[in-house]
Amino acid sequence: MKDAFFKTAARAFGFGFAGAPLDRLSAKRDDFGFVAALRERADARAALIARDMPILPKGEAPREPFFPLSAVAALGGARFEALLGLDARGAPVFAAALPDGAVEMLADESEGILDRRVLIVPGRDDLELVDLRTIAVQGLVSPDAVAILGQAKAILDWHARHGHCAHCGAPTRIVAAGWRRECDACKAQHFPRTDPVVIMLALDGERCLLGRQARFPKGMYSCLAGFVEPGETIEEAVRREIHEEAGVACGEVAYVASQPWPFPSSLMVGCLAQATSRAITIDRVELEDARWFDRADVAAMFEKRHPQRLWAPNPMAIAHHILRYWAEGGGGV
Amino acid sequence: MKDAFFKTAARAFGFGFAGAPLDRLSAKRDDFGFVAALRERADARAALIARDMPILPKGEAPREPFFPLSAVAALGGARFEALLGLDARGAPVFAAALPDGAVEMLADESEGILDRRVLIVPGRDDLELVDLRTIAVQGLVSPDAVAILGQAKAILDWHARHGHCAHCGAPTRIVAAGWRRECDACKAQHFPRTDPVVIMLALDGERCLLGRQARFPKGMYSCLAGFVEPGETIEEAVRREIHEEAGVACGEVAYVASQPWPFPSSLMVGCLAQATSRAITIDRVELEDARWFDRADVAAMFEKRHPQRLWAPNPMAIAHHILRYWAEGGGGV
Repeated sequence: MKDAFFKTAARAFGFGFAGAPLDRLSAKRDDFGFVAALRERADARAALIARDMPILPKGEAPREPFFPLSAVAALGGARFEALLGLDARGAPVFAAALPDGAVEMLADESEGILDRRVLIVPGRDDLELVDLRTIAVQGLVSPDAVAILGQAKAILDWHARHGHCAHCGAPTRIVAAGWRRECDACKAQHFPRTDPVVIMLALDGERCLLGRQARFPKGMYSCLAGFVEPGETIEEAVRREIHEEAGVACGEVAYVASQPWPFPSSLMVGCLAQATSRAITIDRVELEDARWFDRADVAAMFEKRHPQRLWAPNPMAIAHHILRYWAEGGGGV
Repeated sequence: MKDAFFKTAARAFGFGFAGAPLDRLSAKRDDFGFVAALRERADARAALIARDMPILPKGEAPREPFFPLSAVAALGGARFEALLGLDARGAPVFAAALPDGAVEMLADESEGILDRRVLIVPGRDDLELVDLRTIAVQGLVSPDAVAILGQAKAILDWHARHGHCAHCGAPTRIVAAGWRRECDACKAQHFPRTDPVVIMLALDGERCLLGRQARFPKGMYSCLAGFVEPGETIEEAVRREIHEEAGVACGEVAYVASQPWPFPSSLMVGCLAQATSRAITIDRVELEDARWFDRADVAAMFEKRHPQRLWAPNPMAIAHHILRYWAEGGGGV
């Protein structure tokens, strides 16, 4: 039942950022001539990102967030770019990071959590910049395009934060069509970083454990989560994080599904965990609150009719699906 | 059945490097006074690593690979250290990287694959350096100690390769008891890297797909494996890697278990995959060979009686357990 639920959920909703439909051509990345020829093709397109945000054409959803490569030069040239792959029609798709100066900050809408900045492309009233979470939550582009934009953001963010060699400090060079950086000084090779994060629902019979971080939107509770550390399994990380953040001990752990999460470069590993203790001790550094919720609570949260105005993450997030599986009567671990 | 098999396998054999029995004290790492007090305790001990290899006392297995902190100073002081946690008796366990000069290379035994170097500690005939794979395969220390040494090696390797800020190139400072590096120049924070790697067995009815890399010991075949890339799920990475390396298409993918793999800092994510095509096209850059094997082949490989002298990874590796699950009649995906 568990497997069937998550496979159906993945197909029906598409976990945000999963399902990128590209052939990544990994084996061809070091073939400079091959990649250069792809760049010259008339059907080559690029996702454009400036100041961490994709550039979209204005208009009705679903919008088309890919631009001819000529647009990159017109907007100031790329700080760096990567080959993402070939789409279903065989057309090359690149990602290009534009210089910060290619866009301007217009205002600071400090009320909004997801989109504090309004960025514009000077002289291009037909374009706007939108935070990738907002794009995904509001469905501004197709689910396939959300996934490709996530891939683009993750690899470009990595370049933006890794221009130097962590080993010796020298500037590094981009090679392999954007998928490796090399240090000419010490010869170290550096590969894009992907950080595994466990995200999990602890279950105690008819109750599940949710928490909220202070930075969450008001009223939202979600699954607990934390980075997998060196020297531990996924299952060990799940038990450690639940115990550290909420003081709850857990036994059996079951993997359910995974999701790429490009903020900046996580791999969310979704799990269920069987609680073996009930008393909650909150780590106030990590969490503002943590509580046990029953299925009726969670149903009310999904339907936005919880008496305390609590609510659960939307279907973009794997947490939504883990919680829905249990709330709809899914078995335990 | 799948869950039960892997839970039993994890308990019975202990996947190598899993099961470190320490309380990592993550929330206390930034409490400098607390960590300093742990260092002063008479029962504090450290795993010592030089040139990537743990230092062990000579003698019968299981050996005790942890030393009083006074040994660190006696052997030249630590290049860097990290707090690993408290053991089951509440005693602090640290990891310390010794300077390369603390040990000497005695000979080059180029016949051995796992241990080409013979390193000695000058003036300490009671100590030797042993490659961590050899320690795990030969059971030179207890399974708990293998796991702690793995944690130690992973975090110390990270420091050895990340002394500079990847963002701006300046040298960084170790903080948080060895679990974070900070850049005073650009204020970037850097956390230990853990690279998720999918390792998987593609199944086609009564046959499974194994491959060998040119660097493998002669005759060994194993599960295919590869790094998860930015922008993909575990399941997508499994299908991509099998297709890239062997040209085989897969449908359903099922997670089975995970294992920390400190060479240098991987998290092995074990999966089964349902093949939907049969013809093999080998990527000769990645693999020397790939073939379909039936259950009788695999049984012969485990028992070291395969007519072509092929054999499978030993129980230290998660690949062994994935393969054994299927070989012993485990169902499909």
